[in-house]
Amino acid sequence: MRMYDIIEHKKLGEVLSEEEINYFVEHYTDGKIPDYQVAALLMAIYFQGMNDKETLALTMAMAKSGDMLDLSEIKGTKVDKHSTGGVGDKTTLIIAPMVAALDIPVAKMSGRGLGHTGGTIDKLEAFDGFDTKVEEQTFIDNVNNLKIAIAGQTANLAPADKKLYALRDVTATVDNMSLIASSIMSKKIASGANAIVLDVKTGSGAFMKKEKDAVKLAEEMVAIGTGLGRDTIAIISDMDQPLGRAVGNSLEVIEAIETLKGNGPEDLVELCLTLGSYMVKASGRTETAEEGRRLLEETISTGTALEKLRILVEAQGGNKDFVDQTDLFKKANFVEAIKAPKSGYVSHIEADEIGVATLILGGGRETKESIIDLSVGFVLDKKRGDKVEEGDTLAYMHGNDKEKMQVAKERVLAAYDISDKKPEASSFIKKIITKDQ
Amino acid sequence: MRMYDIIEHKKLGEVLSEEEINYFVEHYTDGKIPDYQVAALLMAIYFQGMNDKETLALTMAMAKSGDMLDLSEIKGTKVDKHSTGGVGDKTTLIIAPMVAALDIPVAKMSGRGLGHTGGTIDKLEAFDGFDTKVEEQTFIDNVNNLKIAIAGQTANLAPADKKLYALRDVTATVDNMSLIASSIMSKKIASGANAIVLDVKTGSGAFMKKEKDAVKLAEEMVAIGTGLGRDTIAIISDMDQPLGRAVGNSLEVIEAIETLKGNGPEDLVELCLTLGSYMVKASGRTETAEEGRRLLEETISTGTALEKLRILVEAQGGNKDFVDQTDLFKKANFVEAIKAPKSGYVSHIEADEIGVATLILGGGRETKESIIDLSVGFVLDKKRGDKVEEGDTLAYMHGNDKEKMQVAKERVLAAYDISDKKPEASSFIKKIITKDQ
Repeated sequence: MRMYDIIEHKKLGEVLSEEEINYFVEHYTDGKIPDYQVAALLMAIYFQGMNDKETLALTMAMAKSGDMLDLSEIKGTKVDKHSTGGVGDKTTLIIAPMVAALDIPVAKMSGRGLGHTGGTIDKLEAFDGFDTKVEEQTFIDNVNNLKIAIAGQTANLAPADKKLYALRDVTATVDNMSLIASSIMSKKIASGANAIVLDVKTGSGAFMKKEKDAVKLAEEMVAIGTGLGRDTIAIISDMDQPLGRAVGNSLEVIEAIETLKGNGPEDLVELCLTLGSYMVKASGRTETAEEGRRLLEETISTGTALEKLRILVEAQGGNKDFVDQTDLFKKANFVEAIKAPKSGYVSHIEADEIGVATLILGGGRETKESIIDLSVGFVLDKKRGDKVEEGDTLAYMHGNDKEKMQVAKERVLAAYDISDKKPEASSFIKKIITKDQ
Repeated sequence: MRMYDIIEHKKLGEVLSEEEINYFVEHYTDGKIPDYQVAALLMAIYFQGMNDKETLALTMAMAKSGDMLDLSEIKGTKVDKHSTGGVGDKTTLIIAPMVAALDIPVAKMSGRGLGHTGGTIDKLEAFDGFDTKVEEQTFIDNVNNLKIAIAGQTANLAPADKKLYALRDVTATVDNMSLIASSIMSKKIASGANAIVLDVKTGSGAFMKKEKDAVKLAEEMVAIGTGLGRDTIAIISDMDQPLGRAVGNSLEVIEAIETLKGNGPEDLVELCLTLGSYMVKASGRTETAEEGRRLLEETISTGTALEKLRILVEAQGGNKDFVDQTDLFKKANFVEAIKAPKSGYVSHIEADEIGVATLILGGGRETKESIIDLSVGFVLDKKRGDKVEEGDTLAYMHGNDKEKMQVAKERVLAAYDISDKKPEASSFIKKIITKDQ
């Protein structure tokens, strides 16, 4: 088999065989096939596409390129959740304890964030002492005994995907549905979950700006998951403005705790209940997602979800007092109210810009080596559809550097559109994608 | 400017600006842009194409990437000839002395061959003592005084093209008209000629198998040459069977000499007169190609072309006696007649296969390091349309190794199609492409 022929086949619009896909993934990973041949193939894939069978084969080949986690020591159905990412997304911190509170095992491997804010792992480190580098056996024991563990990825998951993604990123070949879907799913497959619930965002703050693209990506991923024997479902949710009100690491943790206490913002609560309900259903605990939702609501009203968070924090060496006294989280030195420059209705908040403003304050990573300032960020007082008077507070900015705050403030002001007309209401959960559709 | 954006623009079907093309060619040549980004761009070009303006800019950028020869010291219009290559093509050895015999300067830089047989430079070395490594000033002096010099390329001509071609060759991006045309023309432009006559082959032994592709390539090249201020014309000629009768280095030189003596095979004579007549016209020596043709015919009938060959050989240190006593050329140890396995008409000779058979005998280079056996090859006794009886000689094979000859013979027998019906006659010169069309 020659890589040249594989490129030529795809260039001519032929369907690549499983053997061809395995060959190129294996030998790209081991360095025998050079970047330039793979770059040419990726561009040919961009133009000619891949069918479901090819996408499935690519996903499996990438998953098998590194460690395949074995979660068989954990009793019960392991349900994983994945979000395509957005601004203000702290759902894992809420859903994990809620689902675990129903005695469904939550074995969560999370990454650190690169971009606007940190990832789940970064956010958990806001709890004093929280250890995200858990030994494998401790991780498994915790899930079996406490039903919950959240740790950083230490395993060598889907290295082929890592290498391919880095190449796509510099050759303008990121934006192909099959490549995006297989990239995400290869890591999920390698992570060892039995069922996968996907949160696919759409809107100005999402990777998929248009809903129809988000639906297409969701369909591809559901087809892959199902094709590889994983019960998979996808929720299309709104990311046209930041999720919830808090953006920034500690601020998001505090909002997650408030949500577990029953004080969460409407959109965030809705997303957590929706995603969570399908996780409960996938675990086999309930017949329907509706029943799952009712059970999850009870974990909040009865406080069992909040208790599960205390258990998680304590089990991984963190100070659980932070859960009840959120003023223990490290605070920023300055809090500044950003005021509305005119009266009207908030018609749009450019989510990405709020993310960039947080990055400017030091709340995210520009490079892998950046150190995150967990204390900075924003709490949005006004969101889409809210009426504002000139001088009303749009958002509170938490920062440690006055100069950076000045720059960030300009970005936030520019991110808010205020118009005379009240914007039309739009649904937050756009669509549920299952294999049956 | 970022290479990423250039890839993205072409991927989306946009027209690249001259600045973008210059940027990528310059920085690919100096190593600042990596192979993988250029590979992605080449594949995007394959799918989206390039318009005339882009192709022109690419050609000029590649031409300017290395030395630009200055032939201004040579008096008169410098006319260059280029062939897209084929089997049995010895036209330069014939046309150069014919044209020079009319006092038109012929300053020919030629390459060595990689493939079936050697290039012009290899063939000239069949003359004992012939030196193809001529100093620049001697080269120029010879052209001014003798009107003819043929030397190997020593200058660093179009290194960007060399690098790009090597990359295209391993990324399945060779077959794009704009890339092929700009690759050929960049070297011609850098070589410093004022006018260019192109011999574009079509048929089973040519790079362009289909006539319509050959025409398209010719049109692209004529547009580029004209666009860059060079009087350019292209002849589409047949390469559905080998050109002339001789294939192999010394054998082709002998056939060239015979042609200059007036004993050339019809197709070869026709091609040399056609190409030559347009070179004469381009030089300004005649008003029309027809007049040029008449003058060229006289160089043969009067022996001035043959005399010019003697002058060339002597001027570059070769033994001019070879011209008159062709049995001085090194001979192969064995000559074997290959016999027709049945009676009928020769309906087709797969030219590539005759080339491969020559390579098997040792007459070509498989790698840059291969040493060519100049003595081996074939003289075809029967060509398309000829009637044969079973046992008639199809071709004479000249070889030095009995085992290789056995293998080569099988290839030649398979290359000859003999059928009951006489094949339809087809014209040898298919088309003349000029800018005015």
